[in-house]
Amino acid sequence: MGSDSDFDVVSDALKQLRQFGIPHEAHVISAHRTPIEAQKFAVSARENGFGVIIAAAGKAAHLAGFLAAYTTLPVIGLPIESSTMDGLDSLLSIVQMPSGVPVATVAIGGAQNAALLAAQILAVSDDELEEKLTVFKLSLAIKTIEKDKALQEKMQNI
Amino acid sequence: MGSDSDFDVVSDALKQLRQFGIPHEAHVISAHRTPIEAQKFAVSARENGFGVIIAAAGKAAHLAGFLAAYTTLPVIGLPIESSTMDGLDSLLSIVQMPSGVPVATVAIGGAQNAALLAAQILAVSDDELEEKLTVFKLSLAIKTIEKDKALQEKMQNI
Amino acid sequence: MGSDSDFDVVSDALKQLRQFGIPHEAHVISAHRTPIEAQKFAVSARENGFGVIIAAAGKAAHLAGFLAAYTTLPVIGLPIESSTMDGLDSLLSIVQMPSGVPVATVAIGGAQNAALLAAQILAVSDDELEEKLTVFKLSLAIKTIEKDKALQEKMQNI
Amino acid sequence: MGSDSDFDVVSDALKQLRQFGIPHEAHVISAHRTPIEAQKFAVSARENGFGVIIAAAGKAAHLAGFLAAYTTLPVIGLPIESSTMDGLDSLLSIVQMPSGVPVATVAIGGAQNAALLAAQILAVSDDELEEKLTVFKLSLAIKTIEKDKALQEKMQNI
Amino acid sequence: MGSDSDFDVVSDALKQLRQFGIPHEAHVISAHRTPIEAQKFAVSARENGFGVIIAAAGKAAHLAGFLAAYTTLPVIGLPIESSTMDGLDSLLSIVQMPSGVPVATVAIGGAQNAALLAAQILAVSDDELEEKLTVFKLSLAIKTIEKDKALQEKMQNI
Amino acid sequence: MGSDSDFDVVSDALKQLRQFGIPHEAHVISAHRTPIEAQKFAVSARENGFGVIIAAAGKAAHLAGFLAAYTTLPVIGLPIESSTMDGLDSLLSIVQMPSGVPVATVAIGGAQNAALLAAQILAVSDDELEEKLTVFKLSLAIKTIEKDKALQEKMQNI
Amino acid sequence: MGSDSDFDVVSDALKQLRQFGIPHEAHVISAHRTPIEAQKFAVSARENGFGVIIAAAGKAAHLAGFLAAYTTLPVIGLPIESSTMDGLDSLLSIVQMPSGVPVATVAIGGAQNAALLAAQILAVSDDELEEKLTVFKLSLAIKTIEKDKALQEKMQNI
Amino acid sequence: MGSDSDFDVVSDALKQLRQFGIPHEAHVISAHRTPIEAQKFAVSARENGFGVIIAAAGKAAHLAGFLAAYTTLPVIGLPIESSTMDGLDSLLSIVQMPSGVPVATVAIGGAQNAALLAAQILAVSDDELEEKLTVFKLSLAIKTIEKDKALQEKMQNI
Repeated sequence: MGSDSDFDVVSDALKQLRQFGIPHEAHVISAHRTPIEAQKFAVSARENGFGVIIAAAGKAAHLAGFLAAYTTLPVIGLPIESSTMDGLDSLLSIVQMPSGVPVATVAIGGAQNAALLAAQILAVSDDELEEKLTVFKLSLAIKTIEKDKALQEKMQNI
Repeated sequence: MGSDSDFDVVSDALKQLRQFGIPHEAHVISAHRTPIEAQKFAVSARENGFGVIIAAAGKAAHLAGFLAAYTTLPVIGLPIESSTMDGLDSLLSIVQMPSGVPVATVAIGGAQNAALLAAQILAVSDDELEEKLTVFKLSLAIKTIEKDKALQEKMQNI
Repeated sequence: MGSDSDFDVVSDALKQLRQFGIPHEAHVISAHRTPIEAQKFAVSARENGFGVIIAAAGKAAHLAGFLAAYTTLPVIGLPIESSTMDGLDSLLSIVQMPSGVPVATVAIGGAQNAALLAAQILAVSDDELEEKLTVFKLSLAIKTIEKDKALQEKMQNI
Repeated sequence: MGSDSDFDVVSDALKQLRQFGIPHEAHVISAHRTPIEAQKFAVSARENGFGVIIAAAGKAAHLAGFLAAYTTLPVIGLPIESSTMDGLDSLLSIVQMPSGVPVATVAIGGAQNAALLAAQILAVSDDELEEKLTVFKLSLAIKTIEKDKALQEKMQNI
Repeated sequence: MGSDSDFDVVSDALKQLRQFGIPHEAHVISAHRTPIEAQKFAVSARENGFGVIIAAAGKAAHLAGFLAAYTTLPVIGLPIESSTMDGLDSLLSIVQMPSGVPVATVAIGGAQNAALLAAQILAVSDDELEEKLTVFKLSLAIKTIEKDKALQEKMQNI
Repeated sequence: MGSDSDFDVVSDALKQLRQFGIPHEAHVISAHRTPIEAQKFAVSARENGFGVIIAAAGKAAHLAGFLAAYTTLPVIGLPIESSTMDGLDSLLSIVQMPSGVPVATVAIGGAQNAALLAAQILAVSDDELEEKLTVFKLSLAIKTIEKDKALQEKMQNI
Repeated sequence: MGSDSDFDVVSDALKQLRQFGIPHEAHVISAHRTPIEAQKFAVSARENGFGVIIAAAGKAAHLAGFLAAYTTLPVIGLPIESSTMDGLDSLLSIVQMPSGVPVATVAIGGAQNAALLAAQILAVSDDELEEKLTVFKLSLAIKTIEKDKALQEKMQNI
Repeated sequence: MGSDSDFDVVSDALKQLRQFGIPHEAHVISAHRTPIEAQKFAVSARENGFGVIIAAAGKAAHLAGFLAAYTTLPVIGLPIESSTMDGLDSLLSIVQMPSGVPVATVAIGGAQNAALLAAQILAVSDDELEEKLTVFKLSLAIKTIEKDKALQEKMQNI
């Protein structure tokens, strides 16, 4: 994440990764304030055993693209809503990457989805993780069906 | 792709996949016109050997999210610019997915990047492909450096 | 509705339907989390006696278009404002449908209007309901005229 | 339509209505230039046998809301893209109607969809028309499937 | 104003008109809920002695354009911010009028400016009012200069 | 106008003023390039006999607000579309004036409407001009009615 | 600053300037309310020893461009977010300056950055100040690295 | 510039610099394709004698912020309009920089202004250059006054 103020949003991603048992690290690294650290991290990420990088940043959010410039790992961009512009600035700064250096962008503030996408990417070659994703998908459906049932009861009592 | 009119944009992705030697299929499948076919495709994509799905669509672009609802494979969303709204409608329809069902969104019209992201995802567990990506990254740098050299000559002749 | 968090907005539609005595059901059905249920609902909606479907959803709001893909019934799309983007994302995701599959979109958060539009659609062939709509229209005018009168008194006392 | 310059867009709606055999009229009526005519049209539309009204207009597109103020018939709003603003101005002017007076809005320039929505509304109580819509829906699917087949041949020849 | 909920914003305009001693009326009149009343008001506004009309409305704000369709008086449009869209919908619905029927639009929520503009319009042929405007302009400058002085004191105490 | 490149748009305003027989001048005056000239023009505009000022400018369009700062005359702002941003930048730069200094803003590129608004403002105290405006309004209606008739013939021949 | 209500934002710039020991003044000067004062300030700013001007304003923010019209000093534009439009209006009003009169625009509400940019500009010919900037840059990096360390501890305790 | 396709826009800046006799270099350097080269350039720019850096880039335009992360020199950001989004993506990616690392942003496509701003920055401590800027400013005024004269002749011949 580009700033520790992003932690509240990013923590949803961490929870989801823990739930899947995916080993992970979290860092405050800034493309603009600690570019040397960011560069080091990206350059050696693959050999350090990372499979995917999630980069969360707001405003003119360059972190995802910055890291993507130095690695062949898939980089997931997580736009953070800052105080103005509804997060449109971070979304466009992350998703509109020029040809040659893609960033896999998720919704503004979509931290859980960033983690799910990371899991999906790792699951391409990991059947056990894929099974966890299938179970997760089913649990999503079940929760929605239960909410529908709760609504039916509510409707009868109106 | 949601419509055969998207082919001109999508073909850049196909070229890039061929260049990397990544086996692939291309289909015209619509979330709204052929939902049954789209569902079948997504449900059986993993067992049919697909590792990643790229979904290209314009306007209220539901195809990527539609496919993502039926599979645990990573789905890459490629927003296509339609005649109005500069592609903002397709970008938001693709990227702003609700919690639980992510879509890895690339830039509006970023077909080459969609293919590169697919390659990066597959390369997480494929060292040979990763090497091709490293070579590709170097070739990008070399091309840019050559353009800079060409510019220096141009500047001297002004 | 795509999520039970939409209920607070949607309840205005339910109130209006009850006021008109239009029989209705309310469900939590998600295009992304319970696509099979959503598909079943839409495919059999007409034979189950529904005349109109109202689909409320936020962010990359695919529910209305998803249902419209499986039915010939008119589908009314109700964009829900999510935490960012002022609801522009849901509006565009719902209204910008490609040729062949329309969605009748109302204002962001316009739940009462969704119900009124449903009533207008049913009233095309239901003179009794049409009369209720005429009365409703008159009552709108009367309320506005009364508000104007209240304002005149207020103005005299300034 | 609010101006005869909208005819090129609107004609797609007329074609679709003819194809379904739905009797219809087309008029140039302006909320701002011929408000008296617009009012007369709307006030007597239902007794004149109209079931649905499609209102096409651009810029500060008031026509749909204007007509909706005078009738209980469902009014379909068709935003026309004018020279600037990508049609966003007409979209918002049509869709963001205040509580009490809905307009069923379709995509910017979505003339065919306006006609299809009109057909869907009329088909609620017209089984023959509903059958035509079912056939239309199937033909959409078939065309898309054929386009997919054409693409498969194209792909083999690359 | 289109709704009595606009009163809080509009009251700034009324205060300014009272301050200038400009006789005025305030009404709740809706283009969509009381179109007949709105029409009557506009048609007879000039002969009833009005010199300018200020129309305040939110969302798909048609009131200003509606009134302008029935009168040759200058109509000032005052966009009201509704719960979503930051007032952009009302701004575009008011300002983007088609050729032939202008609306003099002021800033979103700019009620005082609507009154000032009305005063400027009336002052074209009213030297006494013009003098009041000149005094008002000077008082604006004086207030700003005093604020600057207050800031200088503040700066010295830091 | 802020630049002579705006002339093509502005000329529609001049034509309309000539048609109404309203004496007028046209100038290229820039808030940024010739601020002294702009200031002189605005300061003495009223005593030089001007009743209204129309200011046309693009991009960060300050001309209207600049002139309004120096005069009590009503200033009409005419946003010009520049090469990017669809004219949204000029619209917001002109219409979003702070409290105390209004600008009467018309549609992006709405030169004819700027002239009509100027005529309406002058007509508040000029019955002859008001009559011309009434005739103009009627002619608008007649043209629209004739276009409707032409459409009816066209429809019969399809 | 255009209004004393901007002080809360602007004070971050003043703090930064004090921290660097850069002599400075702060004024409430309005392009629209005190144009004569604004003009005087800009015309004589260079001979009064100013090296850079920072202009903070909201809505149709003309102050920066206004000052830039009268001086050859670099003018930094600081867009202030007003109650609506997320500051997009002030950003566009400041940054989209026509050819010939640039404004160096920083982020919406980016007061600290305005001061830093001023310092960078002055440091072009001031090695001592440049050293302070280098130290500031290092302190930014150190703070971020410390935040990362704090996060590592936090992560171990989850 | 981030790509040689930006040269057509950037060349206006080069012309202006040549006109002022300001020594300069032009490079194709990409934050994403040649980050190492970009870093080298920025890190040593000051000691290599540069006083200002102009960074031109489109889409998710990170170049300006990237360079600003490695230098204390003022960095001017020049947003380039790409094929979609009217340049809004590059504008926001450049201007919305986080606290600590400012970029002096000019208008979308405002290459001449980027050069003028660079000249203004250098002129803070260079009286000869400042004089050239004063002459340039006067020539701008003269050109505008001449355009006004040409318009007066045009107006007499209508």
